[in-house]
Amino acid sequence: MNNFRFWSPTEFVFGKNTVGNVGQLVKQYGGTKVLIHYGGQSAVKSGLLAQVESSLQNEFIEYVKLGGAQPNPVDTLVYEGIDLCRKENVNFVLAVGGGSVIDSAKAIAAGALYAGDFWNFFEGTVTINRALPVATVLTIPAAGSEGSPNMVITKTTAGKLKRGTGSPLLRPVFSIMDPVLTFTLPANQTAYGIADMMAHVMERYFTQTRGVEVTDRMCEAVLLAVVKEAPVVIREPENYEARANIMWAGTVAHNGICGVGREEDWATHGLEHELSALYGVAHGAGLAVMFPAWMKYVYTSGVDRFVQFAIRVWGIEDTGDKKEVALKGIQALKDFFSSLGLPVNFAQLGAKAADIDQLIDTLKINSRGSLGNFRKLDMKDARAIYTIAAE
Amino acid sequence: MNNFRFWSPTEFVFGKNTVGNVGQLVKQYGGTKVLIHYGGQSAVKSGLLAQVESSLQNEFIEYVKLGGAQPNPVDTLVYEGIDLCRKENVNFVLAVGGGSVIDSAKAIAAGALYAGDFWNFFEGTVTINRALPVATVLTIPAAGSEGSPNMVITKTTAGKLKRGTGSPLLRPVFSIMDPVLTFTLPANQTAYGIADMMAHVMERYFTQTRGVEVTDRMCEAVLLAVVKEAPVVIREPENYEARANIMWAGTVAHNGICGVGREEDWATHGLEHELSALYGVAHGAGLAVMFPAWMKYVYTSGVDRFVQFAIRVWGIEDTGDKKEVALKGIQALKDFFSSLGLPVNFAQLGAKAADIDQLIDTLKINSRGSLGNFRKLDMKDARAIYTIAAE
Repeated sequence: MNNFRFWSPTEFVFGKNTVGNVGQLVKQYGGTKVLIHYGGQSAVKSGLLAQVESSLQNEFIEYVKLGGAQPNPVDTLVYEGIDLCRKENVNFVLAVGGGSVIDSAKAIAAGALYAGDFWNFFEGTVTINRALPVATVLTIPAAGSEGSPNMVITKTTAGKLKRGTGSPLLRPVFSIMDPVLTFTLPANQTAYGIADMMAHVMERYFTQTRGVEVTDRMCEAVLLAVVKEAPVVIREPENYEARANIMWAGTVAHNGICGVGREEDWATHGLEHELSALYGVAHGAGLAVMFPAWMKYVYTSGVDRFVQFAIRVWGIEDTGDKKEVALKGIQALKDFFSSLGLPVNFAQLGAKAADIDQLIDTLKINSRGSLGNFRKLDMKDARAIYTIAAE
Repeated sequence: MNNFRFWSPTEFVFGKNTVGNVGQLVKQYGGTKVLIHYGGQSAVKSGLLAQVESSLQNEFIEYVKLGGAQPNPVDTLVYEGIDLCRKENVNFVLAVGGGSVIDSAKAIAAGALYAGDFWNFFEGTVTINRALPVATVLTIPAAGSEGSPNMVITKTTAGKLKRGTGSPLLRPVFSIMDPVLTFTLPANQTAYGIADMMAHVMERYFTQTRGVEVTDRMCEAVLLAVVKEAPVVIREPENYEARANIMWAGTVAHNGICGVGREEDWATHGLEHELSALYGVAHGAGLAVMFPAWMKYVYTSGVDRFVQFAIRVWGIEDTGDKKEVALKGIQALKDFFSSLGLPVNFAQLGAKAADIDQLIDTLKINSRGSLGNFRKLDMKDARAIYTIAAE
C-alpha cells in the first residue's frame, strides 16, 4: 500500500425532499451572494430551479443565474461565469445539474479569484490556490463531481482540447442528492452515467500496487452494487431504491475512497476524452467502448488482477486458466454494457476507424505523449487500443 | 434507503514516516497551544511522544502534556484534562494513542468549552455546541475514533456507568496513521481491535432497512478484507501491508460510510459495555463473546440478512435451508474469532453467569430499558442473550 492523504469534506445531504434545504445550507457555509449555474431548460421546466430560488429567497440570500452549461462543458461559458461573478461580487457558486454543470461551476469558482486566464490551471502552469466555495444540487448520477476535487473542461478554440485538473479547494462544501430528481433521466443518459461511475472505479481498481485489499474489496463492492441495480433503473426508472443506490454509487466511485493507497490508471479516460471532443458523444458512451478495448490490450501486464476482477465481480468460474478467466471477465463487462443499451464499439458509437490518426494527433498533445500506469502507454499503444475499439 | 446526511471531514494522513508531519498539520488547523493527551508509558518508551513533541517544537507550537488515559477511559482524567486546558489556554487537543486516548481527548475538547459538568453530554441533557479541535496520532486500529464523531467514557462514581455520545464537532480535523506504529501491538490487543472493527461494521450491517445494496456491499467489503488480513497480522506482526489494511479497515468501519441510509443496531455494543465496566475486560474481547450470542438470539427476526452474511462474507454454500445457512454463518464468525485467540464465551472472558443480574441492573439504567433496532430488545431479551453467551 502506498502512503496517502485522504480528505473528503463534502457534506452529503441525501434523500427525498432534500432540495428545500439548499438555502439553509448555503447560509451555513457562508454564501450571501450566489451564482446559480445550470444547464439547459430541463432544470427550468421541472421546477427545480424555481425550488432552489425559493429556498434561497427564504433565507434572504441574493443570487444571479447563468444557464447553458452543456455536456463536455466549454471554456467560453466559464469565462462568462467568471466575469459575472466579478461584476456581481458573487461569493458562492451553486451548481444545479449533472457533472458538466458542476465542472463548469468549479472552473468558474477557481477562475473568479485568479487574475490570469483560468485555462492556465488546465495547462498545468498555475496551481489553484484560491476558489469560491462550490456546492451542488445533483440531477445526474455519473461524473461523481459532486464529491470530487476534479473538473474537465473543453477549450473550443485551437481544436477542442479537453483537459482535466482539480484542487482540494474545489470539493463541494455540500451536495444535495435527491434520487427522485433522476426519475426522469432517459434510459440512454442513465446508462451513460452507469458506465462513467463504473469506469471511475475501474480506473482505480486496475493497479500494480500490491497489498490494497480494503480498497480492492470496496471497488468490487461498488461494482457489484451497480451491476445489481443498473438493470433495475433501466427497466423501472421510478424505482426509488435502485435510483438511490445508483446515485450514491456514483459518489463513492469518485470521491477518492476507492482509490486510497494505490496508483490509479486513467488511461481509458484519456483515450475517451478524444472521442467526446471529436464526435461530441457522451463521455459514458465513449467509456463503454474504450474500457473493454483497453482491457483486452493490457490484461497480460497483470493477469492476476483481471482474474480477480472476473471472479469477484462477474462470478466467472476459476478454471485455473488465467488468460481464459481474465478474458471472460472482460467479455462479461462488455456484455453488461451492451445489456444496458450502451455502445461497445466504434460503429455503435458513431466513430470511424479512419479518424484514428486525428484522435492520436490530439491525444498526443493532451496526454503529453504517455498515458496510464497499469501499463504505460505510448501513442503506438493508444493506436492499437483505438483499433481494437474500432473492430 | 433512508434519507441521510454524511459528513466526514477528517484529513487522513496515512503511511510510513508520517508522524513527523504533526507539527505542520497542527499549524495548518490553527493550533497554537496544544494539549498532548496520551496513555501509558509505551508512547514514551517507544519514542513516539518525543517525535511528536519535536515536530511541534519545529513549528514553534507550545504544548502541555497529560498522560494516563486507560482502556475504558474514565471521567476523572477528563476533569483533569478540562482543568488543564482552561488553566493553560489550550486551543487544540492532540490524542496520541488508541481509541481510549482519543475518546478521552474528545471529552476534554468538548468539556473545556462548556461551563457545566461534561457528564451532562453523556446523560443526554445537554448537546455539544462547541469543542476545541481534536486531532490524533493513532497507535491502535480498533475503535475507529480517529475518524468518528463518537466517544465512550466511564463514570467511576455511582457504579461504573459506561456511556457513549458524540458530535460532528468531535470528528478529528486530522488523523496521522502510520501502520509501523502497530507492529509492536501484542497478538491479543491486535485481535481485540479486529473484533471491535468487525463489530462496528456488523452493527450497521444488521438492519431492517431495505434497498441499501451499496452499503451492504461496502460492509461486506470491509469484513472480507479483515477476514483475509487478520490471520496475517496475528502470524506476522511486522507485515506492513497486512497491518496497513487492518489499520485502514478500522477507520472505514466506523467513519460512517458503511452506515449511510440505514437504521443501525448497536445492541451488542450496549450489552458489551456492561461486561467491560464490570470486569475491566477489553471492549473487543467482550464483543467477540457477545456478537455471536446476539446473532443466535435475533437471526430469526430477519433470516435473509443472515443468509446474505453467511454466503457473501463466509462463503457458506446456499443449500436453500435459510436457518441452516444463517447458523453456519454465525458459527463461521465464532470460529474466526476463536482462530484469532479471542474469547467467545463467558468462561473464556472471565465473566460469570452468576453476575447476569448485576449486568442487567446497570444495563437497565444505561440503555434506558431498551436496546437495538434489528430486533428491539427489552431486559428479558438481554438476559437471554447474556445466558447464551454464558453457555
